[in-house]
Amino acid sequence: MRVDGRQYNQLRKVEITPDYMKHAEGSVYICVGDTKVICTASVEDRVPPFLRGSGKGWVTAEYSMLPRATQSRTIRESSKGKVGGRTMEIQRLIGRSVRSVIQLDRLGERTIWLDCDVIQADGGTRTASITGAFVAAAQALHRLVQSGSLKSMPVTDYLAATSVGIVDGNPSLDLCYREDSQAKVDMNVVMTGSGKYVEIQGTGEEAPFSAEELNNLLGLAREGTAQLIQAQKEVLKEAGRSIGGEPHGQSVAMD
Amino acid sequence: MRVDGRQYNQLRKVEITPDYMKHAEGSVYICVGDTKVICTASVEDRVPPFLRGSGKGWVTAEYSMLPRATQSRTIRESSKGKVGGRTMEIQRLIGRSVRSVIQLDRLGERTIWLDCDVIQADGGTRTASITGAFVAAAQALHRLVQSGSLKSMPVTDYLAATSVGIVDGNPSLDLCYREDSQAKVDMNVVMTGSGKYVEIQGTGEEAPFSAEELNNLLGLAREGTAQLIQAQKEVLKEAGRSIGGEPHGQSVAMD
Amino acid sequence: MRVDGRQYNQLRKVEITPDYMKHAEGSVYICVGDTKVICTASVEDRVPPFLRGSGKGWVTAEYSMLPRATQSRTIRESSKGKVGGRTMEIQRLIGRSVRSVIQLDRLGERTIWLDCDVIQADGGTRTASITGAFVAAAQALHRLVQSGSLKSMPVTDYLAATSVGIVDGNPSLDLCYREDSQAKVDMNVVMTGSGKYVEIQGTGEEAPFSAEELNNLLGLAREGTAQLIQAQKEVLKEAGRSIGGEPHGQSVAMD
Amino acid sequence: MRVDGRQYNQLRKVEITPDYMKHAEGSVYICVGDTKVICTASVEDRVPPFLRGSGKGWVTAEYSMLPRATQSRTIRESSKGKVGGRTMEIQRLIGRSVRSVIQLDRLGERTIWLDCDVIQADGGTRTASITGAFVAAAQALHRLVQSGSLKSMPVTDYLAATSVGIVDGNPSLDLCYREDSQAKVDMNVVMTGSGKYVEIQGTGEEAPFSAEELNNLLGLAREGTAQLIQAQKEVLKEAGRSIGGEPHGQSVAMD
Amino acid sequence: MRVDGRQYNQLRKVEITPDYMKHAEGSVYICVGDTKVICTASVEDRVPPFLRGSGKGWVTAEYSMLPRATQSRTIRESSKGKVGGRTMEIQRLIGRSVRSVIQLDRLGERTIWLDCDVIQADGGTRTASITGAFVAAAQALHRLVQSGSLKSMPVTDYLAATSVGIVDGNPSLDLCYREDSQAKVDMNVVMTGSGKYVEIQGTGEEAPFSAEELNNLLGLAREGTAQLIQAQKEVLKEAGRSIGGEPHGQSVAMD
Amino acid sequence: MRVDGRQYNQLRKVEITPDYMKHAEGSVYICVGDTKVICTASVEDRVPPFLRGSGKGWVTAEYSMLPRATQSRTIRESSKGKVGGRTMEIQRLIGRSVRSVIQLDRLGERTIWLDCDVIQADGGTRTASITGAFVAAAQALHRLVQSGSLKSMPVTDYLAATSVGIVDGNPSLDLCYREDSQAKVDMNVVMTGSGKYVEIQGTGEEAPFSAEELNNLLGLAREGTAQLIQAQKEVLKEAGRSIGGEPHGQSVAMD
Repeated sequence: MRVDGRQYNQLRKVEITPDYMKHAEGSVYICVGDTKVICTASVEDRVPPFLRGSGKGWVTAEYSMLPRATQSRTIRESSKGKVGGRTMEIQRLIGRSVRSVIQLDRLGERTIWLDCDVIQADGGTRTASITGAFVAAAQALHRLVQSGSLKSMPVTDYLAATSVGIVDGNPSLDLCYREDSQAKVDMNVVMTGSGKYVEIQGTGEEAPFSAEELNNLLGLAREGTAQLIQAQKEVLKEAGRSIGGEPHGQSVAMD
Repeated sequence: MRVDGRQYNQLRKVEITPDYMKHAEGSVYICVGDTKVICTASVEDRVPPFLRGSGKGWVTAEYSMLPRATQSRTIRESSKGKVGGRTMEIQRLIGRSVRSVIQLDRLGERTIWLDCDVIQADGGTRTASITGAFVAAAQALHRLVQSGSLKSMPVTDYLAATSVGIVDGNPSLDLCYREDSQAKVDMNVVMTGSGKYVEIQGTGEEAPFSAEELNNLLGLAREGTAQLIQAQKEVLKEAGRSIGGEPHGQSVAMD
Repeated sequence: MRVDGRQYNQLRKVEITPDYMKHAEGSVYICVGDTKVICTASVEDRVPPFLRGSGKGWVTAEYSMLPRATQSRTIRESSKGKVGGRTMEIQRLIGRSVRSVIQLDRLGERTIWLDCDVIQADGGTRTASITGAFVAAAQALHRLVQSGSLKSMPVTDYLAATSVGIVDGNPSLDLCYREDSQAKVDMNVVMTGSGKYVEIQGTGEEAPFSAEELNNLLGLAREGTAQLIQAQKEVLKEAGRSIGGEPHGQSVAMD
Repeated sequence: MRVDGRQYNQLRKVEITPDYMKHAEGSVYICVGDTKVICTASVEDRVPPFLRGSGKGWVTAEYSMLPRATQSRTIRESSKGKVGGRTMEIQRLIGRSVRSVIQLDRLGERTIWLDCDVIQADGGTRTASITGAFVAAAQALHRLVQSGSLKSMPVTDYLAATSVGIVDGNPSLDLCYREDSQAKVDMNVVMTGSGKYVEIQGTGEEAPFSAEELNNLLGLAREGTAQLIQAQKEVLKEAGRSIGGEPHGQSVAMD
Repeated sequence: MRVDGRQYNQLRKVEITPDYMKHAEGSVYICVGDTKVICTASVEDRVPPFLRGSGKGWVTAEYSMLPRATQSRTIRESSKGKVGGRTMEIQRLIGRSVRSVIQLDRLGERTIWLDCDVIQADGGTRTASITGAFVAAAQALHRLVQSGSLKSMPVTDYLAATSVGIVDGNPSLDLCYREDSQAKVDMNVVMTGSGKYVEIQGTGEEAPFSAEELNNLLGLAREGTAQLIQAQKEVLKEAGRSIGGEPHGQSVAMD
Repeated sequence: MRVDGRQYNQLRKVEITPDYMKHAEGSVYICVGDTKVICTASVEDRVPPFLRGSGKGWVTAEYSMLPRATQSRTIRESSKGKVGGRTMEIQRLIGRSVRSVIQLDRLGERTIWLDCDVIQADGGTRTASITGAFVAAAQALHRLVQSGSLKSMPVTDYLAATSVGIVDGNPSLDLCYREDSQAKVDMNVVMTGSGKYVEIQGTGEEAPFSAEELNNLLGLAREGTAQLIQAQKEVLKEAGRSIGGEPHGQSVAMD
């Protein structure tokens, strides 16, 4: 049994509250157990220099934690005057992941800013951020479709992420902080609604892992992301904003 | 009538949710209309260099806004690599204000960090931060009393803040963003439970103001802060943590 | 009696030397007791991004102290690599104050840079900076009128500032450093020639203050700023550059 | 056939020159095709704050590129005043990877600094850096053993890295820059001498990938790292500094 | 004839006002023509890390210009967040020069901070800074002798600096700004009272120069620094603080 | 005899390897004894703001050292977040020196970036950088001539640099690190092929020096730079890219 009584292949309780913020074009409050993240999507009508004049859009992400999201207070990166390596790694991961299912050439010269602010941290903040940011992005894009700025949703598939790891010798799904800090192997997996891999980041700093262990972990991740995508579909459907039934081919029609 | 239908001497709806965060020693979620701030109080067992060995404690504050707390996205100060002038001004104000009612020489060599993170902004974020931070600080100090680290509450009085201003020629209490952006005179007032001034910051950049206008504004601020302090008392009382009935003399006994 | 033998309502000796610098469009050397500040006004033919194309001008200020302006050497902000909170607060205050009496829409797309460099500090550096910067700004604007760049002076009123505070229980005008460091209440007041308030910044970090104390302090500030404005008028008149006899209505004709 | 005529499962030519630098405790010049990296290992007799007094050592890495390592000149990070996200990601990866095969608790309170400076870049700079840094680290540790500072080599296994990816639909080993810039899937794999995974970082930003494609890529990576480790063994053996024949159990005896 | 009517071997008018600042241990206001610099010497009772425990002292310098010291406003280095290359070069030069005539091993573990703040610039600000900083340092050291902290003056010789250059083909002494901006060759020379060279920094970016031209320039510099040292002696003598008649051997007795 | 057995007027062994880098327009690997520097010249088709529209080109330099170029590891300037004073001084020196023999008005609106990266340091890194950077610049310019972008070489003369100093009382040429750290006087001299001075930077921080000592040092520098220029000529000639036999007048024809 796990420290919080879950099965090895069981996610923590997931809640996704859409339209959480008054001002943002898209926003969700996602809770995965005690990990709580506000994800917003903001639309800006210009792109970074390397895309100007290309007719293509861009999706980028920023990630931050409130100082007391953590057990002991973390110093703000604004006070330190620079963004740390861990933060950069995470925000690059979020941006890359969401871009993989958005057709940038159908977005117009716009940037979607995804802001993931961790209100409370209990393990898995980066994967909760990706899962939430996808929904916020879908909302913002839906709004662009409704306002006539886009003809149809430039989204090719759903997208969610979870962590897996080997804790006390057991491959486990969706690690909470206590598990994460004891895990020998730690892996973040980002998958699409059609079950393809977008990102695999596995590290065995504490103990290198075998091909068999890798397969077990990837299996758990597949189960977990499928459930998370189910939750995303329900949230988007309730709001009349699902990205399409089953993704088929490249582009997905609106419901 | 005001833009949101309020009387000129009427506060927006105030809600203070205590114990909002899992990890922090003190925390509240304060909503003043659509302005929403998470205030946490963290206890650190050391003081800044200038107080080391003095036996005295310190109280300091940091303030930040989520990028989409505002109508259009605000660039993160961590990305810019420096904390802006407005932020510094506000966090200095919060720290100074709360220190005015805490007996630093009875605190021991500890620092209370007050973190005010604006989740949503609709005018009056700095005054909501002060009002909320006081409650978070009281909670954290109460916990130090309960754990035996402090003999009694080193708090001399309640403390709350509100904004006042002249909008369309009318002195008005607790400006929302639309009012604030049109106000000719804008003033933030921090007051104690016994009706004394801790801070007055008034600016007539758009139009200098007369002594009579000043008096009207201060009168409104007095009404507003008294009601905010009433709300603080109720929240702290429910949690069995009021700082004392009526403040008398310097130090206030626990209920 | 006060530490330097003054009456409670007495300013320190004030000297304003105009045209102190060879290169600047406007410049004064202002001494208020042992506090000495060089204030320059520089005219730049462009405005910050948020005003481009608006036809309006801008006034902004920067403030700094020589390392040995102070009793013990202060580390340069250029060496620290960032401007501190106190400096930012002061330069925002100076800019806001001077803008309140300048008609930005009659300035053209120009920026007036006000640089206040404290050569020696003995209390009241920010208020001496405002009093001096107004004169430097008036000189620079006068020069624009003379060169035909402006039709008339876009100045609506005189402007000066002083500090007041409660020292040893006595409300006192124009605190020197020794008084300032012992004051329980400390207030900076910026007023116009017609006796209106532009800024009130009062803080009772050491001891909250009553409405009566506030009134006494504001009365002293009124007396002090009136005398400072008298000194400004004489300096500008001698140089044939007063902004007008009595300000009437919005715009003030040249003598 | 590939752009440079190689087989899909063929590495580029690998050369590892040991003892390349006069001053460093360990150093190699590693060339993988036209990618050329100087890797040095420096021993410092202290550890970061979080390890002080723990008796444990630390291994950390820094990575940089000469401005003209690349086709067009890259701006120096020292000129920009900050280390970019890509660099941080890479140096964290190198450090984590090498730590996975070094027994920090047998290192004493020492830090091994691994500096990887890319002289010329043609794809795979991070994996060449890991492969070279391991050899430099082994040299530096060998020197500590010879000087009596360590009793035996605190190294549990060999370690090498390579990149794999899907280019024009073909899973390919060790991508050069032209391949890398066209690859739909890009994966870096770090493996030990005993064939275990230390890090897997795969990204399908351009096109999510299937489980089958993943398996093919991992197979190529396994072949490639095995050959690289063979090259490491020869270099270390010639210098009389191999870490041991076959790693057995945790700790590996010196030859 | 030169642009300002001087002979080619003639210095501009030099004025050195000692004890210019209230707080500093040593201070002068030095004017060389329209170039005006405040130089202060501050004594700090500790040394940089590399000298701790050595029993030796240190002398270091910082240099800055007021924004309107120059014809058009210069942006503050504190606003830019970094000290520029020119400033660094100058402050390193001032520190090195003054150290050359101070016996650091007789200074005790103290740092002399030399702050050179240019109030107005008209060419030769770095050489005026050196000439003034030497006098400020001598004053501060004299004060340490008088207070008994030092037994005798740890100064081995006088020290002054001037600029020379080739303007319109003519070797010229002490260039003003207009000359400096047209000079083909520009050289700063720092010399001692006994006529030895401490620093020579000559640059012929516009036109390389011959050995003969070099000799002419060095001759002019010798004349100029001898006169500047005469001025220093008079200022220090009036204040009863000359460093000694003629320097003899290493250490110089007080008058 | 010197520490490494050389005569006082003898250079260390000099090797200049041209075309060292695959991507750069010009590049050399220069070794002067154990001092080893990679110098590259990159052509960028734009100029800094102050030259835009002028029709003139620019030459600028950057300098850096690998962390283990030195005996003990040096912290990277990118990690410190700023470029230090020594580095700035050196890169300004390199840029100024090379500009002195390049006709910027014949270069077109182009910038030549000279990057000098010290692989190994044993004294004289800045002078080796200048000597190498000149050759790299000549190569890049030659390529512009060959491609028809320039009509002829805009180079007026050869350029090399060396260090001289007084070690144990003996004027010595081309100091290695051990000599440099003991030298009382240290001087860097940059000279042209026709024997003119471009830069003289001499410092006697440890001991001021006499006119006679200066003459001896300049004589040694003259001998050394003449030999270095001979080596440059051979390298450029072998590659068919010498800048001309004997420089005559301003512009030098290609061989």
